[in-house]
Amino acid sequence: MPTFLSIFEYDGSPYRGWQSQPGLKTVQGEIEAALKTLTNHNIIVQACGRTDAGVHALAMPASFEADNIDANRLREGLNGILARQLISCIDVYEMPSGFNARFDCKGRAYEYRILARRAHPALGRGYVHSVRVPLDVDAMNFAAQYLVGRHDFTTFRSSDCQADSPVKTLDVFRVSRRGEEIVIEAKARSFLHHQVRLMVGSLVQVGKGHWEPVDLKHALEAVDPVASGPMIASDGLYFVRGIYSELPEPGPYLRS
Amino acid sequence: MPTFLSIFEYDGSPYRGWQSQPGLKTVQGEIEAALKTLTNHNIIVQACGRTDAGVHALAMPASFEADNIDANRLREGLNGILARQLISCIDVYEMPSGFNARFDCKGRAYEYRILARRAHPALGRGYVHSVRVPLDVDAMNFAAQYLVGRHDFTTFRSSDCQADSPVKTLDVFRVSRRGEEIVIEAKARSFLHHQVRLMVGSLVQVGKGHWEPVDLKHALEAVDPVASGPMIASDGLYFVRGIYSELPEPGPYLRS
Repeated sequence: MPTFLSIFEYDGSPYRGWQSQPGLKTVQGEIEAALKTLTNHNIIVQACGRTDAGVHALAMPASFEADNIDANRLREGLNGILARQLISCIDVYEMPSGFNARFDCKGRAYEYRILARRAHPALGRGYVHSVRVPLDVDAMNFAAQYLVGRHDFTTFRSSDCQADSPVKTLDVFRVSRRGEEIVIEAKARSFLHHQVRLMVGSLVQVGKGHWEPVDLKHALEAVDPVASGPMIASDGLYFVRGIYSELPEPGPYLRS
Repeated sequence: MPTFLSIFEYDGSPYRGWQSQPGLKTVQGEIEAALKTLTNHNIIVQACGRTDAGVHALAMPASFEADNIDANRLREGLNGILARQLISCIDVYEMPSGFNARFDCKGRAYEYRILARRAHPALGRGYVHSVRVPLDVDAMNFAAQYLVGRHDFTTFRSSDCQADSPVKTLDVFRVSRRGEEIVIEAKARSFLHHQVRLMVGSLVQVGKGHWEPVDLKHALEAVDPVASGPMIASDGLYFVRGIYSELPEPGPYLRS
């Protein structure tokens, strides 16, 4: 059966995360319901990253198999059905048989957006995490470099994490200003459950001056979840993109 | 009585524009109600630009007089009262007596944000105007330059416009890409009512290829509102900033 890769943008606010759950509104659930309407078949969609409740996606790759339909009709049909959802299908590609958006992914990029100012956000509420005090971006970026590389990330791991090993290689962890926002970029082949939000929550401790940068290194070396800073809210987290050897980099699924 | 300048950010979506109207929810109405709660006085607030329904503001200057309160207490008090509104007070300054945010303004900057792609926006809905076809940004920017300078802008003027003269000087009118969005910047000392939305609506005709760039020049020269392209929706329009000789440029009211 033909295999497709679709790229979804979604606003995580109204959904209980990616993964289908009986009786709950989830991104996967809405997409699979749309595919059922479109094809009259029950189709299982496999995402590159199963985001938590409230996490957004700029371009989430997801794969599935479908018969008697082409990529163009899938994209148009999905967007017609999803028009009133905060989910849109940016593009669909037909892929080699057996392609899997989760298992074939070579790298995942997330970013976390913070508005650090005293006044509450009026524009972009729900799209940026509000911290009411100034943050020291240079100290945060300096500290972030302690986490780059291959480490046991047990400190920054949810107790629900189902990964086989807590050892991961963090390729990029960078803090910078983008206009009025502070943006934290994280790239790795894969992440532990809650790893990005726990690492960012710890960085915010550095930004506020509650931790010295080197305290982040000590937290990592503790190899103990109690050493992490508090987990930050999901409202500022974006799944940015998945990287595949089969698709050109930066990928044909840019928005314009 | 001491005069203050406050800088407001707001999401225009839930408000019927800036200006107070009996029985309607407006930005000015909410701010004046908050000032009444805070000071127990009826205070009239004068904005730099009286935005239409749905138009957003990144930093709207507004002036008013108030007794027995300082700038810091005003900012904190307003944000406390406005916390559940999509309005926030970024900063407040005490100004020389007689300062007026509307009449002392030396320049106003707007921008219009367009997402030109087939898939509906899932992120940022209400913050960007969706055009479902590709737009030729180079042709739009080329055409935009025909409007820069001192002209009779009758073509791009609402029939409700109360300005004394249709002659205005457009200092900047520029189309470029910012990430996945197309951004149209417009700067002038002042604008006619609906001028930005009518000019942008006409530029979109160029971007779609329905007009040649020179057709924008012909529209301007017609000095007739029927020559304008269709007015574009308010959802992509932002009041960016007001410029004053009394405040340093780019102004101390950046968000971070």
